[in-house]
Amino acid sequence: MKHALPVTREADFAAWYQSVIAEADLAEESGVRGCMVIRPWGYGIWERIQRLLDDRIKATGHENCYFPLFIPLSYFEKEAEHVDGFAKEMAVVTHHRLVPDGKGGLMPDPAAKLEEPLVVRPTSETVIGTAFSRWVQSWRDLPVLINQWANVVRWEMRTRMFLRTAEFLWQEGHTAHASAEEARAETLKMLEVYREFAETCLAMHVVTGEKPENERFPGAVATYSIEAMMQDGKALQAGTSHFLGTNFASAQNIRFQNASGELELANTTSWGVSTRMIGGVIMVHGDDDGLCVPPRIAPWQVVIVPMLRDQPEDQAIVDYCRDLQKELAALSALGEPVRALLDLKPAKAATKRWGWVKKGAPIVIEVGGRDVAGGNVSVIRRDRLYREDGKLDSRVMPRGALVDTAAALLAEIQSGLLARSTEALRAQIVPLDNWAAVEAHFAEGVTNPGWVDVRWSRPTGAELEAVVERIKALKLTIRNAPLGQTGCDDGPCVFTGAPAVERVLIGRAY
Amino acid sequence: MKHALPVTREADFAAWYQSVIAEADLAEESGVRGCMVIRPWGYGIWERIQRLLDDRIKATGHENCYFPLFIPLSYFEKEAEHVDGFAKEMAVVTHHRLVPDGKGGLMPDPAAKLEEPLVVRPTSETVIGTAFSRWVQSWRDLPVLINQWANVVRWEMRTRMFLRTAEFLWQEGHTAHASAEEARAETLKMLEVYREFAETCLAMHVVTGEKPENERFPGAVATYSIEAMMQDGKALQAGTSHFLGTNFASAQNIRFQNASGELELANTTSWGVSTRMIGGVIMVHGDDDGLCVPPRIAPWQVVIVPMLRDQPEDQAIVDYCRDLQKELAALSALGEPVRALLDLKPAKAATKRWGWVKKGAPIVIEVGGRDVAGGNVSVIRRDRLYREDGKLDSRVMPRGALVDTAAALLAEIQSGLLARSTEALRAQIVPLDNWAAVEAHFAEGVTNPGWVDVRWSRPTGAELEAVVERIKALKLTIRNAPLGQTGCDDGPCVFTGAPAVERVLIGRAY
Repeated sequence: MKHALPVTREADFAAWYQSVIAEADLAEESGVRGCMVIRPWGYGIWERIQRLLDDRIKATGHENCYFPLFIPLSYFEKEAEHVDGFAKEMAVVTHHRLVPDGKGGLMPDPAAKLEEPLVVRPTSETVIGTAFSRWVQSWRDLPVLINQWANVVRWEMRTRMFLRTAEFLWQEGHTAHASAEEARAETLKMLEVYREFAETCLAMHVVTGEKPENERFPGAVATYSIEAMMQDGKALQAGTSHFLGTNFASAQNIRFQNASGELELANTTSWGVSTRMIGGVIMVHGDDDGLCVPPRIAPWQVVIVPMLRDQPEDQAIVDYCRDLQKELAALSALGEPVRALLDLKPAKAATKRWGWVKKGAPIVIEVGGRDVAGGNVSVIRRDRLYREDGKLDSRVMPRGALVDTAAALLAEIQSGLLARSTEALRAQIVPLDNWAAVEAHFAEGVTNPGWVDVRWSRPTGAELEAVVERIKALKLTIRNAPLGQTGCDDGPCVFTGAPAVERVLIGRAY
Repeated sequence: MKHALPVTREADFAAWYQSVIAEADLAEESGVRGCMVIRPWGYGIWERIQRLLDDRIKATGHENCYFPLFIPLSYFEKEAEHVDGFAKEMAVVTHHRLVPDGKGGLMPDPAAKLEEPLVVRPTSETVIGTAFSRWVQSWRDLPVLINQWANVVRWEMRTRMFLRTAEFLWQEGHTAHASAEEARAETLKMLEVYREFAETCLAMHVVTGEKPENERFPGAVATYSIEAMMQDGKALQAGTSHFLGTNFASAQNIRFQNASGELELANTTSWGVSTRMIGGVIMVHGDDDGLCVPPRIAPWQVVIVPMLRDQPEDQAIVDYCRDLQKELAALSALGEPVRALLDLKPAKAATKRWGWVKKGAPIVIEVGGRDVAGGNVSVIRRDRLYREDGKLDSRVMPRGALVDTAAALLAEIQSGLLARSTEALRAQIVPLDNWAAVEAHFAEGVTNPGWVDVRWSRPTGAELEAVVERIKALKLTIRNAPLGQTGCDDGPCVFTGAPAVERVLIGRAY
């Protein structure tokens, strides 16, 4: 069986990942260090993610705003932990004008140096918190529930497209509440929104849980994440939700008069997901023929490729395809109108077919002269590309039958991809009882070890640091302590031997 | 008649403009020089603009992409005119890390200076052109039709919210074509998209035309604009479309093999509109009670305010309002579901009523106990707030009658606002025949002179410079030469006395 990509997952997973991005026209290097160009197919997936997630963010009572790209240095100086966490990797604007450098080029104008340098936002807690301090006076002003879709910049040394880029696109929600309980409930509510979104729309099964202390967002009291299982067994943190307590409110003076007339600090939260999710979609659903996009987030769900031969009959084929496109576009699938494209670009039909397979369009329909004569279409499902004998599974069926079943087929593909992801996640998590077993599980040379699920005593301080050092030596991190645990059975912590209080997932990660 | 704003248009138009922004909760100063915070109601209007314009941009065959925020200095050095036009006002990133400054604060790390400074994009021709040079090899790759929704930064010295801010949000379309004719046609097609959008969605009548040579985009062969008439008689350039010829293609090496196998330079275009449009909406539709948002771009089209009195009957009022909200949300108006909000925030009904009037919600419905008892509602139309006797025009009508007519009422408000804008534009343009008349028209002390429409000979070079100096002395600019002129009648150019070739509009502008 020959595949459409130049490299298979098994041969070199990292090279395969890059080849999917290139062959599916998702993105490319921009020539600007660490920044990518997101091409139409990749950006189309992001637009679908935005639309579907934005609907959910609004349905839970949040409103969108927009805050400045630039943050004055002094804003960062107020929250010490936050600075420590971010100061190492920020782009700093120091000048506001260019002048000729005398060598035929340009340089920053020494006469146009900013009095206070500006940081390009790596995240917006500081600037949004400053706005909250203006907006919140009384308990009546709470809760404040806002969200922003924006670009942010973190000066990463090693970048990888979608997964870790200097500039990336995301949404960041920020809320302020009258009580810690309410803020904690908000933190978990948005984590649940992310879980439902990842599973329903991205067909990506995730584990929701709390991050250990050492993996908390700088300045947070508690950080929760959704963790997804990639096909190489590594974890992808696909979204986070932070309970910030009064840490940021205290640094930014977000105070309100409560019903009894006393001044109190607000409790705040923040939560975000980014274009990183697209990296997750690639590594969960891609195969050796390219990407496979879940129908809910596919820019085009059905692509019609007419098989033209520069013959007089071509016009009849195009007309037939146009009618079919209209019939499909009039359907509703998964709660929305079907997105059907007729691909009339000047290229060979086989090139176009494989182009759409690599892009991962859920259904590709080919129409040739024989199909038109018989009132048929030839249908390829991206999630089941090959027959058992290894040949391409292109099925001829009456056009009417396709139109009648297209919506159900899209729903079936969507749920099938989720089922596959659920199965893969479960199959790649192994419960282990002691440290020796963990070491053996992640020994050098073991391919695709997945994650392990172990008991721990939730150590803190120096004891936690020692644990982190031990797992770091195996290139591992604690992903999270899954929510909904019914309590830990009797065994000891695999690290400390002390009585365990919960189970945590440990694995390699992106 | 007492109005909701602290200042009237007549008393001080500039102060009135700021007060609308503050009182309607559209935006506020951020504390970061020249950057604003766009608040939910302002951002909601921008989201509506994005959705409606994006549909049109896609319907004309364009796809969305995303390009880097940062542009290396060297990219700018390639297109000389472009650099001259933008180099004076760009934010420059020179460092990628902060370190303690030894005085308890932070400073850019001298050890983390970038080898090549990065400019925060003021516009993306250079970085997108570089991508085009990779994408375009053959005539088969053309046209390339893409668009980007993004933030851009221009270091303006004097800023004014929405109209001129250091950072602003916009869309920028960029296309490459095989021929100059095709590129020119694209430039005009997108200008027409902007005109239709401004009139249909913003209810803002605009004049489409070509900018004079001195007002062209830096590096463009021709620049076209849509110009709108503000209530103070000033012009607002609300969108531009540029034919770039081969200027950028030459600087960025966008070449293709034509059907005969020869290498040719592509012709490119770019076009954009920004959050500036919201400033236009304010100054076209606002009045002394605040903003008046055209229904198509109103985040909420109908707002229901229950008049509660902390009495047992309150629950019945809320239930009645909930049912009404559902009935309205099930309607379709102007081609979309009606956006109806039930405002249950803890505040007095009169405060809420005036809050929504100031925000400019098209229809505000108040419901009190008497309305519930009679099966009625009290309806306020934002576009006709007062009766002839100067009292608030709140009309009691049966609830069923309101639901039956709400969609038609929204359409009527939308078209009424456009008609008013068309009338205002026409009434404020005066045709004049000679320079003395122009001088008299714009003499000091004349309030609201609007624009004048004059013949000119389309001078170039030094002759044009002289014309620009003359009108600059009167604080005027040439707005554009309207499209669709049927040729100029016999009279001479008001500036040069030479035979005129076309008519141009001249006025003061934002």
